[in-house]
Amino acid sequence: MRISALATATGLSVATIKFYLREGLLHPGVATSATQASYDDAHVRRLRLIRSLIGSVGLSVQQARAILDLVDEPGDDLYATLGRAVSALPPTVEPPRDDDPDPFPRAREALESLGQVFDPRFAAVAQLESALAAADAAGMPISAERLSAYGARLRDIAQYDLDRMPDDPHAAVEYTVLGTAVYEPVILALRRLAHQDVAARRGLGR
Amino acid sequence: MRISALATATGLSVATIKFYLREGLLHPGVATSATQASYDDAHVRRLRLIRSLIGSVGLSVQQARAILDLVDEPGDDLYATLGRAVSALPPTVEPPRDDDPDPFPRAREALESLGQVFDPRFAAVAQLESALAAADAAGMPISAERLSAYGARLRDIAQYDLDRMPDDPHAAVEYTVLGTAVYEPVILALRRLAHQDVAARRGLGR
Repeated sequence: MRISALATATGLSVATIKFYLREGLLHPGVATSATQASYDDAHVRRLRLIRSLIGSVGLSVQQARAILDLVDEPGDDLYATLGRAVSALPPTVEPPRDDDPDPFPRAREALESLGQVFDPRFAAVAQLESALAAADAAGMPISAERLSAYGARLRDIAQYDLDRMPDDPHAAVEYTVLGTAVYEPVILALRRLAHQDVAARRGLGR
Repeated sequence: MRISALATATGLSVATIKFYLREGLLHPGVATSATQASYDDAHVRRLRLIRSLIGSVGLSVQQARAILDLVDEPGDDLYATLGRAVSALPPTVEPPRDDDPDPFPRAREALESLGQVFDPRFAAVAQLESALAAADAAGMPISAERLSAYGARLRDIAQYDLDRMPDDPHAAVEYTVLGTAVYEPVILALRRLAHQDVAARRGLGR
């Protein structure tokens, strides 16, 4: 199909599609003349994925490109690929200095108290440190009890996720990378809605 | 203290503090002359809170102001205040049209299957609809089983949160509004780290 038909099929403007082509998020079509190219269903699927990462998940073009690059060229090590995916997602954190023996002491203590294996250079450790500091600054520090309550439920969710990882290596990477990006907004929306449900049942407001 | 001492106490530049004063996030100091004002510990605490909302939680200045306005002027209805807080937080979603009897059918079905009470105009319903659509577009639709697995754990977390809500009405609003904003990054970081823990124990990579 031509770019105009691709626009109709995806509900995007031709200008937006050209922008994603220029930015390298969408692979080029097959050239049919000096000024025209032909696109297929793979382009439609890719554009839907781009839109979901930028529109619904809320990633920047640069973050979406980093995630799509990992899906396209995952490398051999699933563990390292997951690490790169997490680095590409918000919140953006500074990597630790190489010579700092204990760059994220609060996150380390929290993870030790949960008994969790972790790589101190994994971006989520810095993200946890930053999140714990923000809770302190808001006057709502995360107690050991709250950490343990949250941690147990999120570990259940992680077990569920890993139990359903596809066997095929390429599919596993896609599941890991996209699942980190795409399921997080579901989890946040569900938590907000669970608050509403519990509050309503207890007769708070309304 | 003068603004220069406030800058030293918070690690922020005088220009940044003046910006937050202009934007109305920080309340003015007590004028001591035509060009100087005096600030106190309440300003230090407020600046730490502003920094945590903008820096760690990743809110825009506009979103942080909306959250701070709710903490400052919460109104009487805790339920409605929580609704406004959720509307102010990302992801930004369009409110439903008044004449649309079923604007978010997938979210409605999901919440009905979880047996949860919900207000269809609560922003998190639109956020859930958008998140479910993004998962579809990524080729990773949320199954009924996954929804139920996530939903049960997030409801446990919501129960925990509500059980610890302060009795004092002002403190309860602060807990509700700031807790929604500040605890979410903790939850996302913990989920990412739980994935790493479970993956490492199963010998994936490393």
